[in-house]
Amino acid sequence: MKKWLPRFSSTSTPLNETVNRSLDKQVKLAVTGLSRSGKTVFITSLVHQLLHGLGTTTHLPFFQIASSGRLRGTKAMPQPDMHIPSFLYDSAIEQLCGDPPTWPKPTNGISEIRLAIRYLSDNPFFKHLSPISTLYVDIIDYPGEWLLDLPLLELEYEQWSEQIARACEIEPRLSLSKEWRIFLNNLNLADEADETVMRQAANLYTDFLHQCKQHGLSLLQPGRFTMPGDDLKDAPLLKFCPLLEIPQIPQNTYNENSLFAEMKKRYNSYKEHLVKKFYEEHFSSFDRQIILADVLSAFNNGHATFVDMRDAINMVLKSFHYGKSGLFNKLFGGLKIDKMLFATTKADHVTPDQLPHLETFFQNMLATSHNNAIFEGVQTETLALAAVKCTQAAYTMFEGKKISCIKGVPLKSDKPVALFPGEVPPNVPMPEEWVKGRFHFVEFKPPRLANVHGGGLPHIRLDRALEFLLGDKF
Amino acid sequence: MKKWLPRFSSTSTPLNETVNRSLDKQVKLAVTGLSRSGKTVFITSLVHQLLHGLGTTTHLPFFQIASSGRLRGTKAMPQPDMHIPSFLYDSAIEQLCGDPPTWPKPTNGISEIRLAIRYLSDNPFFKHLSPISTLYVDIIDYPGEWLLDLPLLELEYEQWSEQIARACEIEPRLSLSKEWRIFLNNLNLADEADETVMRQAANLYTDFLHQCKQHGLSLLQPGRFTMPGDDLKDAPLLKFCPLLEIPQIPQNTYNENSLFAEMKKRYNSYKEHLVKKFYEEHFSSFDRQIILADVLSAFNNGHATFVDMRDAINMVLKSFHYGKSGLFNKLFGGLKIDKMLFATTKADHVTPDQLPHLETFFQNMLATSHNNAIFEGVQTETLALAAVKCTQAAYTMFEGKKISCIKGVPLKSDKPVALFPGEVPPNVPMPEEWVKGRFHFVEFKPPRLANVHGGGLPHIRLDRALEFLLGDKF
Repeated sequence: MKKWLPRFSSTSTPLNETVNRSLDKQVKLAVTGLSRSGKTVFITSLVHQLLHGLGTTTHLPFFQIASSGRLRGTKAMPQPDMHIPSFLYDSAIEQLCGDPPTWPKPTNGISEIRLAIRYLSDNPFFKHLSPISTLYVDIIDYPGEWLLDLPLLELEYEQWSEQIARACEIEPRLSLSKEWRIFLNNLNLADEADETVMRQAANLYTDFLHQCKQHGLSLLQPGRFTMPGDDLKDAPLLKFCPLLEIPQIPQNTYNENSLFAEMKKRYNSYKEHLVKKFYEEHFSSFDRQIILADVLSAFNNGHATFVDMRDAINMVLKSFHYGKSGLFNKLFGGLKIDKMLFATTKADHVTPDQLPHLETFFQNMLATSHNNAIFEGVQTETLALAAVKCTQAAYTMFEGKKISCIKGVPLKSDKPVALFPGEVPPNVPMPEEWVKGRFHFVEFKPPRLANVHGGGLPHIRLDRALEFLLGDKF
Repeated sequence: MKKWLPRFSSTSTPLNETVNRSLDKQVKLAVTGLSRSGKTVFITSLVHQLLHGLGTTTHLPFFQIASSGRLRGTKAMPQPDMHIPSFLYDSAIEQLCGDPPTWPKPTNGISEIRLAIRYLSDNPFFKHLSPISTLYVDIIDYPGEWLLDLPLLELEYEQWSEQIARACEIEPRLSLSKEWRIFLNNLNLADEADETVMRQAANLYTDFLHQCKQHGLSLLQPGRFTMPGDDLKDAPLLKFCPLLEIPQIPQNTYNENSLFAEMKKRYNSYKEHLVKKFYEEHFSSFDRQIILADVLSAFNNGHATFVDMRDAINMVLKSFHYGKSGLFNKLFGGLKIDKMLFATTKADHVTPDQLPHLETFFQNMLATSHNNAIFEGVQTETLALAAVKCTQAAYTMFEGKKISCIKGVPLKSDKPVALFPGEVPPNVPMPEEWVKGRFHFVEFKPPRLANVHGGGLPHIRLDRALEFLLGDKF
């Protein structure tokens, strides 16, 4: 029988210590990402590091509990929330470590996996009481689109419509939204609501969102339109769209059955049944939040995509503002999350000497929100990392001089190539400097690995992420 | 632009009467059925009759509000519950009335459609106050499997396991469950729960349920195993199964992490998150319940299938018992449903003279439960009906004598045939009388129809169903 979950991967010391359950701790790590940021790979590698990467003290040098030798073993456990789909680690790792290795299929919706990490406590009190403690780590995976829905909670239908209408005045949304805008302009919003018309408008708007996604844009609201899940696909609360112009209707002629009124009702129902529910059922219980982005893809796609990604992250971060005007405080009386990690993934797609630039660039991109979040009591960290390193540093000659490059198998090839991936500017280039072809970071295939479970997967800076996220819990 | 919903299909009288909204009434009709009973066709035809069949006084003679000429028109309206998927009437009627006509695809999960019926009130008081009233009819479609889950609420995991284990001792479940039973017998239930093992056991049990379904069996518990919906497919609460033998574990050695304990936890989580939630969110608001079954298919499949269908319906009906020991009273403080209609569908598959036999047979089959339900305050009715009539009465000669038969296009043919479908016994035959080949009722293609929206679809006794379900509401 094939084992989905490895047994305790015990390290040097035998497991003969007694465990005192009352001292055990628990932490809920929520992982999300803007589209195509490699969320599934990140979680798969994180789990793999914890299951298999703790046996040596050198694989995760910055993750102190591992490098200090206090780890006793990790195993996967039945998850606590039975109504949340399981994160299918087994199938993801099979794809990633198969022959040939492939990137795991992206997940849809929410999923969860629980790990139990046993370690030697160094707390002077506890260590005499019970030398071995357990930290339960619940990793919860959910679509970035759902996070991007949280700001809707502060917006009336009219306000949200205006935001979208403004965004559609500039490219690339101007062209991509054309068909939907023409349809909308031909409607009389005071007419009685007609189900066919509402569905057509919603479908055209959803098509537009799908096209935005293909163009690498991040800000796709409402998030469930592109990720509905089977159970809601045909529900009216997914069959509305924003309006380009809000009709001025005098109070005394307001018709509750008009197209406008019905659109507004559905928007409010969407917020109530989906956005608030997500906050109440899941988000409010998270202890730590990881937000992944793929900044290099924004380089490839140009200035508009970059701006969109920055705006999307900033919009989300506004929700985290504390204080009297804060969203979570106002609506739900607070937020548990005390640490947020922003990570730009695929850091192995640049040469090692460009890594600091990538990190600085990402920090600059988030500067405003970042400061606010610190100010408001959430500790934040910015990192460039590679969950699974699929290139190696190499050198090539350019005009007689050695130049750093990387070597890996491009996604659309079968042979390894050494290439110079381009330089990362430490500061955001001016709009006119984002000329076509200046940036072209290539995607790679996963590395072929021997003895996959003998140690953690190759990575860049995942140990720093682990230290930030879990280090204080041991 | 194609209209999904017809406008008020006004009949003779012009719509110049004032409408007093405060006098409007509302009724929630829940429709469910055992597998392959033709639930989607039933709802589609019901909606079509109400939208298009009320123009003449002869199409629905037993539906008094229609035959009395007091109907003013019906239209589809935006449904009240925005988080429930819409019943896609438009697409169903397109398939049913296409060229060639096809049976609409069955629905998965829950869906809803709202109709507004305007009529002339004959209430001596209201008719002067406001001659035109509106009855809002919400039709809610949900899988019969979910109804079959309600009895679980009264059963502990051990009790339910025992029921299933007993059912698997006789054919056809004995053979169909073989693989699952062998797997289960090789497990040590006191072992620590292993996710792979749990999933394998659940998958084998689910395969078994799918095979039961193919064999025409009705009692498929837990219902969500065969109809999970996308959002829950990989959730732990769908990854358990009943046990063949309950391990005898002394209290002091009970291990909370054992396979047995985890299975039991998941069963309870299934009840809590799915069964109870369905009751609370939906079932508790239903006014009337229609339960469809296809008794003729049970004839075709033999005695075991028939017994299973009878047991399934009886099991469900037990949940409707009122009084101190009643399930709904005990758990939720009551039930709104005051009328239940049991209908055996496809009554056009027998000759007209056999119709009374079919109805008597169905009544006898339900006799016990039926009486109980009346006793407990729910009015019940039993009917044999055809939502869409696809055969016509004809005659053929047999040994020189005229014999009744039916004419239609069999499902697996392109040409109409006249055939003698066999006799329906008014009483349940003894087990040994269900010999192979005695019963063989053929399935037919939908009829080709001209001028579909000029009148209601051809049917058998749908007017009686409408009168029972809605007649008292006008």
